[in-house]
Amino acid sequence: MTVSVFEFDRSIAIDPQGEGTYTAWLDGGWKVGGGLNGGYLLAVLGNAIKAEFDGHPDPYSISAYYLSPAKAGPAVIRVAIHRRGRGTSTARVALSQPSHDGTEEVDRITALATFGDLASLGDQPVLETAKPPLLPAYDQCLLSSEAPTALKEFVPMLDRFAMRLDPATSAVLTGRPSGLPYVQAWFELADGRPIDPIALLCVADTLPPVTTELGQPGWAPTVELTVHVRAIPALGPVRVRHETQNLSGRLFEEDCEVWDSADRLVARSRQLAITPRRAG
Amino acid sequence: MTVSVFEFDRSIAIDPQGEGTYTAWLDGGWKVGGGLNGGYLLAVLGNAIKAEFDGHPDPYSISAYYLSPAKAGPAVIRVAIHRRGRGTSTARVALSQPSHDGTEEVDRITALATFGDLASLGDQPVLETAKPPLLPAYDQCLLSSEAPTALKEFVPMLDRFAMRLDPATSAVLTGRPSGLPYVQAWFELADGRPIDPIALLCVADTLPPVTTELGQPGWAPTVELTVHVRAIPALGPVRVRHETQNLSGRLFEEDCEVWDSADRLVARSRQLAITPRRAG
Repeated sequence: MTVSVFEFDRSIAIDPQGEGTYTAWLDGGWKVGGGLNGGYLLAVLGNAIKAEFDGHPDPYSISAYYLSPAKAGPAVIRVAIHRRGRGTSTARVALSQPSHDGTEEVDRITALATFGDLASLGDQPVLETAKPPLLPAYDQCLLSSEAPTALKEFVPMLDRFAMRLDPATSAVLTGRPSGLPYVQAWFELADGRPIDPIALLCVADTLPPVTTELGQPGWAPTVELTVHVRAIPALGPVRVRHETQNLSGRLFEEDCEVWDSADRLVARSRQLAITPRRAG
Repeated sequence: MTVSVFEFDRSIAIDPQGEGTYTAWLDGGWKVGGGLNGGYLLAVLGNAIKAEFDGHPDPYSISAYYLSPAKAGPAVIRVAIHRRGRGTSTARVALSQPSHDGTEEVDRITALATFGDLASLGDQPVLETAKPPLLPAYDQCLLSSEAPTALKEFVPMLDRFAMRLDPATSAVLTGRPSGLPYVQAWFELADGRPIDPIALLCVADTLPPVTTELGQPGWAPTVELTVHVRAIPALGPVRVRHETQNLSGRLFEEDCEVWDSADRLVARSRQLAITPRRAG
């Protein structure tokens, strides 16, 4: 296992045990509410799949179903290959952890993914009607790591990145919901590690849930999260926007777009999540 | 196996073999291009998962990865349960078919799904910023089953439903691409079977690919398709809209919304697909 100078690489490191099995040590720094951040876990899974696929390093698509909250500590990741193709390969992957008393394994996430080589897609024509989010300048946005202590105790992962929230959608910091159905921010990893396709899996699930802006603070457990990585990001901070268009029956979908510094839509994701239980 | 008066039910029927295994006879009527329609196959998978989950009949979310084109004829579906919860249950499901010479099984689709009970979600408040598609009146739209013979030979499934395309996005019928990045239509099953949550899985992948409107006719193979069913549709035809916002590197995402006759957003889906190879 190569040790990287970057904290993020160390936190998603995986150790091959043969036959598609990997071990990892899940980093408590990515704690949010009752478990570890779903995006962080997705990056760990992505790292294991990438290790299995020679020549197909990039997640074109990954769909994760969350089964139980992951904890800091040891984990086992198993990759089962469904198809090795010329342009893409598809695999199933699951992450489990030892139970409290260590006598059995508890499933945390199960996922499916198709990987390929984004660089090989080259400079094909791009037809993009999506527009980058309109965000105030980087230094006019609010740094999430300067959140109140009570929030940081609930969301330790706020120290893992430099997230600069649009002041218009910063209820998570100010406690004043905007009523807007979206939240947007600039995003960099805390250690300045460049955001590559694997890190994008993490980026897609790090902003506060949009429900925070709708007056429903708290953790919104993810049922399902699919991320499509569409291009290798240019260097520099990315802009991230989460939006919901349909909150009903205690469920809401959250659409996420990640734009790089060259105004390219590098990733889109959608998740189905459960609305937070009202405090008190 | 109960035999339904409805053709659609017969075409998605599954026969339990015990231990989560089911057999099915895939209906050649759902042929499109080189294989069977991905939405139709998703409904077959959904039907098998539904049979496994007592009290959780509805697909809150299903994510399918397509491995090889399915053919008309026998198929085996295997459901493996990941979690049975109080409100939702999660399973993995795979569909395979005998190879040409019958000596081995070929994987067609692998999927993950979380099912629950939509009726139990009740009349929770709905916060919906999405708007139903603006479609011309039902009888002013163009019936897909009246397509030219050459098209119907390539897309036999056009006879399986009454799809009435917005004349503004009917390049599949007229051969004249609009240049618009969307396609929209009214939709009913051919036999008038009410559209329930399982049928919605099919509806989400029946419109022509949006690439048809962008001057790239032909079949667009799906890499990944996730459908979220959010409510039980009211009786009557649904309205379906597919849109792409990012076509690049030979890949495009297609977002789909399905609205019922009561103006409720009953399903959303997103797929990552491969642009059609240019004819000639």
